[in-house]
Amino acid sequence: MLHVNENYAKVKPTYLFAEIAHRVAAHQSARPGAKIIRLGIGDVTEPLAPSVIKAMHAAVDDEAGRENFHGYGPEQGYAFLREKIAKFDYNEQGIDIRPDEILVSDGAKCDCGNIQELFGPDVKIAVGDPVYPVYVDTNVMAGRDNIQLLPCTAANGFVPGPDGCTADVVYLCYPNNPTGAVATLAQLQEWVDWANARKSLILFDAAYEAFIRTPGIPRSIFACKGARTCAMEFRSYSKTAGFTGLRCGYTVVPEELSAYDSKGAPVPLKPMWTRRQTTKFNGASYITQRGAEAIYTPEGRAEAKATIDFYLENARLVREAVAAKGYEVTGGVDSPYIWVNVKCDSWKFFDRLLGEADIVTTPGAGFGKAGEGYIRISAFNSRENVLESISRIDKVI
Amino acid sequence: MLHVNENYAKVKPTYLFAEIAHRVAAHQSARPGAKIIRLGIGDVTEPLAPSVIKAMHAAVDDEAGRENFHGYGPEQGYAFLREKIAKFDYNEQGIDIRPDEILVSDGAKCDCGNIQELFGPDVKIAVGDPVYPVYVDTNVMAGRDNIQLLPCTAANGFVPGPDGCTADVVYLCYPNNPTGAVATLAQLQEWVDWANARKSLILFDAAYEAFIRTPGIPRSIFACKGARTCAMEFRSYSKTAGFTGLRCGYTVVPEELSAYDSKGAPVPLKPMWTRRQTTKFNGASYITQRGAEAIYTPEGRAEAKATIDFYLENARLVREAVAAKGYEVTGGVDSPYIWVNVKCDSWKFFDRLLGEADIVTTPGAGFGKAGEGYIRISAFNSRENVLESISRIDKVI
Repeated sequence: MLHVNENYAKVKPTYLFAEIAHRVAAHQSARPGAKIIRLGIGDVTEPLAPSVIKAMHAAVDDEAGRENFHGYGPEQGYAFLREKIAKFDYNEQGIDIRPDEILVSDGAKCDCGNIQELFGPDVKIAVGDPVYPVYVDTNVMAGRDNIQLLPCTAANGFVPGPDGCTADVVYLCYPNNPTGAVATLAQLQEWVDWANARKSLILFDAAYEAFIRTPGIPRSIFACKGARTCAMEFRSYSKTAGFTGLRCGYTVVPEELSAYDSKGAPVPLKPMWTRRQTTKFNGASYITQRGAEAIYTPEGRAEAKATIDFYLENARLVREAVAAKGYEVTGGVDSPYIWVNVKCDSWKFFDRLLGEADIVTTPGAGFGKAGEGYIRISAFNSRENVLESISRIDKVI
Repeated sequence: MLHVNENYAKVKPTYLFAEIAHRVAAHQSARPGAKIIRLGIGDVTEPLAPSVIKAMHAAVDDEAGRENFHGYGPEQGYAFLREKIAKFDYNEQGIDIRPDEILVSDGAKCDCGNIQELFGPDVKIAVGDPVYPVYVDTNVMAGRDNIQLLPCTAANGFVPGPDGCTADVVYLCYPNNPTGAVATLAQLQEWVDWANARKSLILFDAAYEAFIRTPGIPRSIFACKGARTCAMEFRSYSKTAGFTGLRCGYTVVPEELSAYDSKGAPVPLKPMWTRRQTTKFNGASYITQRGAEAIYTPEGRAEAKATIDFYLENARLVREAVAAKGYEVTGGVDSPYIWVNVKCDSWKFFDRLLGEADIVTTPGAGFGKAGEGYIRISAFNSRENVLESISRIDKVI
């Protein structure tokens, strides 16, 4: 008889965004004419950069002829992309990361979800609260349901420190999803020192680094001294360049990074992650990787930056409008997310905005207990819809 | 201290195709002028069908404007593709599979590798020997190293039956990788009856179904009576339509299919696989899915079939040439692989063909103990290279 992995039964039955989609669909069918504006799920709305489009057309044409045809690529990603990542995302910022420490994938969600396979069944996990659900759910599915929650509250500026954290693995995400908070170099350095002292691991989710504009705020955990021996970093082209429909991201695993076997002997993680990917993954689409490469041309960089600037201006408009209504807000600076203290049940506030203003947000409680009383508003939309939302919110709250 | 998943240390240190790539690179650098012909890894060489290219250009253009922009898609795949799969790959063949039983992914390798997450840690696995290494390695990584091997030998026509198989999960692959053998409907029905009687599961890898031309040979496990309660099926556009560089496949999980909890109560597998994919995966590229959709147009189907016919003719040429040299051969009919009994150490034979004829094959021993004494020759190449290989082989063996 085939036994099931019973840990799946311990995962919350519905993935947050699936539940939201369900409520939105119900609202839409109850009010067929309603013009719903989606400021919920963090999906981009603006077209891809012209440089990316051009590169992908060329890549499609490569697949049309025998001469430039690309079949299976390296599971770790093409060298043409890994070299540009190392140079432009790290070396130019004064950070020593080499191309062979970068593994390209079909997205940061997949990597963040799969990485826990490398760890023992009983490692202790810590996450922020509120938190991106993937970190928690993927560990619960693997039987690790004793997870330490690090409350992110107004009191700690939504950036908890390592004091009292007893985990072997901590997930950190800055700029944060969902709160929009950013961490200073000193705050990240505290975590790095803590991890090195304990032989713990930091899984640093930098999916939103492209939104950082404030000088001095670090874009990478590897800006900290000693991070190469205690951290991995996940990045994504989804938010940086609008690749949510194309699927591309990457994970950085420094050569020096190790876990430990039961005798306490170090086991390097880079060969393990490489092995995981070569065995269970077959590389990201060639066309997508050529598109990602184009982001590193001078035109591509300028175009990608202009789109991020556009979303950041949306974020500023929403942030100021909500703050003007007397709500406490975090984020919306260096981040596409605005985290609003609504001082009431967050699903109720979600339902109210959906019901009365046809606006979709994300209830903070969906991200964890400490998210109760908050909603997340996303700045990913057209200017027209953002202004329309502000005017609707003005009327109902 | 961060403990490692020690099961990784039990996996063979090198993935087969990585080892081959290593030996080929060494040969290439020792003989820089050599014109190496690759009949090893099962990667396609022919350009994509014009219909696919056209559809992907259009999809790239969709991403260039706000109006048709596609961001995050459904993790299960777009309805436009799932509906065509159900209709053309199943319903038209008289098989009842519904669109919502189909989950589109970025490839069959990923799905075959990830599916074991749904099962308990102690379920007993069975695989053919020789075997596609992914089935074994992914289970060993999860701690299931007590795997029953089902020898595929000349004596059983390379199609072992269920007699004596005591597994909870059996991986079956027909047309087979690596032997090229196909199973009859009666042979598959035996497995289905066995699985239903035992409450075991068949994981049916149909990646090569498009190569079947012999009337009566089933393309799907769901051609068998009762398969809906005991089988999943994996399919891939990699070989069907040359998508190795684009990444798309799908998994069929019938509504009725269940595993069992520790009390023996059934737990449906479709919601579990859906949950796995929504939590750890973010859908296949929109551009790739539009490309896959184009394979189901009348032109796309004709073009894809023509390419398979081309590879099948390659296979026939290789098969007959090798047989004419007095070797026993299997496969090469209804399959792109020719399995040759070389009657000596298979890595030695591999090295000899590489060293003396600059031809890359795959040593049978790389697929398991029962593969010792065989090599796999792939028919994925240009006609010119296939004819050149035949002439080189003629000279050295």
